[in-house]
Amino acid sequence: MPNPYQRARAEALDAADPLSSFVDRFVVAEPDLIYLDGNSLGRLPRATVDRLGHAVTEEWGRGLIRSWSDWMGLSRRVGDLIGTRILSARPGEVVISDSTTVNLYKLAAAALDARPDRRVIVTDDDNFPTDLYVLAGLAAAHGCTVRRVPADPDRGLDPGVLRAALDEDVALLSLSHVAYRSGALADMAAVTRLAHDAGALMLWDLCHSVGAVPVPLTDSGADLAVGCTYKYLNGGPGSPAFLYVRSELQDQLRQPIWGWFGQADQFQMARDHTPAPGIDHFLVGTPPVLQTYAVEQGAALVAEAGLDRLHAKGMALTSYLVELADEWLAPLGFRVASPRDPAHRGSHVSLHHPAAWQCSQALIDRGVIPDYRTPERLRLGPAPLTTSFTQVWDALDRLRRLVEAGEHLRYPAEPARVT
Amino acid sequence: MPNPYQRARAEALDAADPLSSFVDRFVVAEPDLIYLDGNSLGRLPRATVDRLGHAVTEEWGRGLIRSWSDWMGLSRRVGDLIGTRILSARPGEVVISDSTTVNLYKLAAAALDARPDRRVIVTDDDNFPTDLYVLAGLAAAHGCTVRRVPADPDRGLDPGVLRAALDEDVALLSLSHVAYRSGALADMAAVTRLAHDAGALMLWDLCHSVGAVPVPLTDSGADLAVGCTYKYLNGGPGSPAFLYVRSELQDQLRQPIWGWFGQADQFQMARDHTPAPGIDHFLVGTPPVLQTYAVEQGAALVAEAGLDRLHAKGMALTSYLVELADEWLAPLGFRVASPRDPAHRGSHVSLHHPAAWQCSQALIDRGVIPDYRTPERLRLGPAPLTTSFTQVWDALDRLRRLVEAGEHLRYPAEPARVT
Repeated sequence: MPNPYQRARAEALDAADPLSSFVDRFVVAEPDLIYLDGNSLGRLPRATVDRLGHAVTEEWGRGLIRSWSDWMGLSRRVGDLIGTRILSARPGEVVISDSTTVNLYKLAAAALDARPDRRVIVTDDDNFPTDLYVLAGLAAAHGCTVRRVPADPDRGLDPGVLRAALDEDVALLSLSHVAYRSGALADMAAVTRLAHDAGALMLWDLCHSVGAVPVPLTDSGADLAVGCTYKYLNGGPGSPAFLYVRSELQDQLRQPIWGWFGQADQFQMARDHTPAPGIDHFLVGTPPVLQTYAVEQGAALVAEAGLDRLHAKGMALTSYLVELADEWLAPLGFRVASPRDPAHRGSHVSLHHPAAWQCSQALIDRGVIPDYRTPERLRLGPAPLTTSFTQVWDALDRLRRLVEAGEHLRYPAEPARVT
Repeated sequence: MPNPYQRARAEALDAADPLSSFVDRFVVAEPDLIYLDGNSLGRLPRATVDRLGHAVTEEWGRGLIRSWSDWMGLSRRVGDLIGTRILSARPGEVVISDSTTVNLYKLAAAALDARPDRRVIVTDDDNFPTDLYVLAGLAAAHGCTVRRVPADPDRGLDPGVLRAALDEDVALLSLSHVAYRSGALADMAAVTRLAHDAGALMLWDLCHSVGAVPVPLTDSGADLAVGCTYKYLNGGPGSPAFLYVRSELQDQLRQPIWGWFGQADQFQMARDHTPAPGIDHFLVGTPPVLQTYAVEQGAALVAEAGLDRLHAKGMALTSYLVELADEWLAPLGFRVASPRDPAHRGSHVSLHHPAAWQCSQALIDRGVIPDYRTPERLRLGPAPLTTSFTQVWDALDRLRRLVEAGEHLRYPAEPARVT
């Protein structure tokens, strides 16, 4: 094995990578661009270009209203693809619907409704903002309170701290499986058990884990989950989200937004609402057909690559990134602001630095696209389906060189934000 | 003028139609197909094919996450296009977001919240089912009741009947501007005045009116409105919906689904929710970028054609349809189940017949696509932007011939529905 800090080692890792050819299934318009933001917006699969073209010109343009016979089953079909091939759920437990935020609202509201004697929602204070806002809005409307457990912004939530917050007043525990900032990965089975021990329902946000790490929905006993499809599933900008409701709960829970796609025998056009059986009750309005097709193509690539291989490569990529950061960047004032054990993180790593904002701007000018997250973090997401070890090496090499030379100091400070 | 029942008259009307060339702006894969369901799913604009292709390959494929700088303003920009050019609203009052059903939920909930001492929602019993379901769900959750005023399924709602239902307990009046079945057009200003006289807020569903008839949101004093974009706006299957909130109310009302796109200074990632000012507060999650671009193209064509001309042609098309139906179809057992005065209907007409289901199947086999709506109605929607008078003539001619010959009787009866 070559010297671990030489580029030759990255090349050797790429040569041994069983997923290395998957990048050819994607549109790569700028081969020299190093894209480390696949955990915000995944790349465009080549198959999606053709599938969307067909859906637009043939299904919409030629088929017109007749194509609804194909489109009616789409939300379920793509939901099952994600559920059974990527999330370890059973058929009929996952469906494509709305945005992550709307789905979170529907499922959290259903949980509160199912535990009317309990008036507390527990989450952690480092959960993704939209999750915190949705829960706060629901609590305000339902006369409940949100208990925000402190989470370490680098290492995630301590199960002991969480356990202490769970009592007989708690209706719902709502957490992210992988923390959006640090990448800290929760133990789904253990945390779900804590919620159930307290008599609460468990709702997981899978945005940063779906397609990157195993998600044992069935085996963990998780009740509810939501997630987006535009990150590791490569569904495109604003692609519709998914939701999961455990089979045994589907006919017990009632979500609050009663729409015609959640109605039994929808086209009877009855005046009174009768919930559709099963997961369909959790649908609401007319589904975004075109973008759902894009989700199907992206998710199919993830399923084809296989979650075990994706997870293994994600751990290898991020471990390599941490190793290089320790060697090159720690002396320059960077701190790895993510769990160090790859089994305890998703597929992204945050690096804290006081000038992280300027570094992010300097990297963009040098052909590397990172993400910036407050406060003072470069968030680097090497997508296992499309990122190479050499790209990780090159990105960190450019970062150390520019910081060593003080080039980041030529960039303006982070814009002031209203607080 | 030729004999009114000869095809030559239709040809003369087409020759005089100032909008006749607009059909060339659309993909017409089967020129002989007569499409009378544009009020369910509008045709595909040619410009949309190119715009979506560019958005997919260039903005997503090449631009990746960098394209969000363009995408962030999209929901507002397309909302303003619809609001100011098609709905007679002011800038910053309309925005693209979610589905019609979700938007109806958000705005109706905001209205209930704004009238906490009032516990009744009024609608009519012929309103579109998803509207009835959303209101029923909200009423159940808020301990309110829904008062469903009887509406005539052919002629719509009688203002006198409505007035009698409005009292000091009513928080919200929620109605469709154009009835989905009969096409009956409500007097927006007069009905809004009734709501306001009773101290209630007024919420309009514009699904069947946007792009077909004038919608005087500003002048009528309407408080709230929602609508879809896949009918006369030609936004494509499941394209995102819009919502309208009167400027003066935007910072008074609070919608219940608090998401990060409705947050002031979204990327500060604050833990506590601070509503964004203005219409942005009514946004929720990540918007469906690609399908929003399709809405923009479709709405731009409507704006270019001009609502006055579209409305005039819609009245002419449906009047011609009624005239032919009276002459040819009434003797065969058909009844015009829509208002006879074109000033009192949208751009579709329903024809009642006991064998309407079989007629709809027979028409499809004869190159005409109608819609079927329970009970026993053919719903015919000649879209003013893409339908010719000759197509209306041909469709009704085929219908009378097949019914005269009893050919519809060879089709199976409407499938039994669970009731």
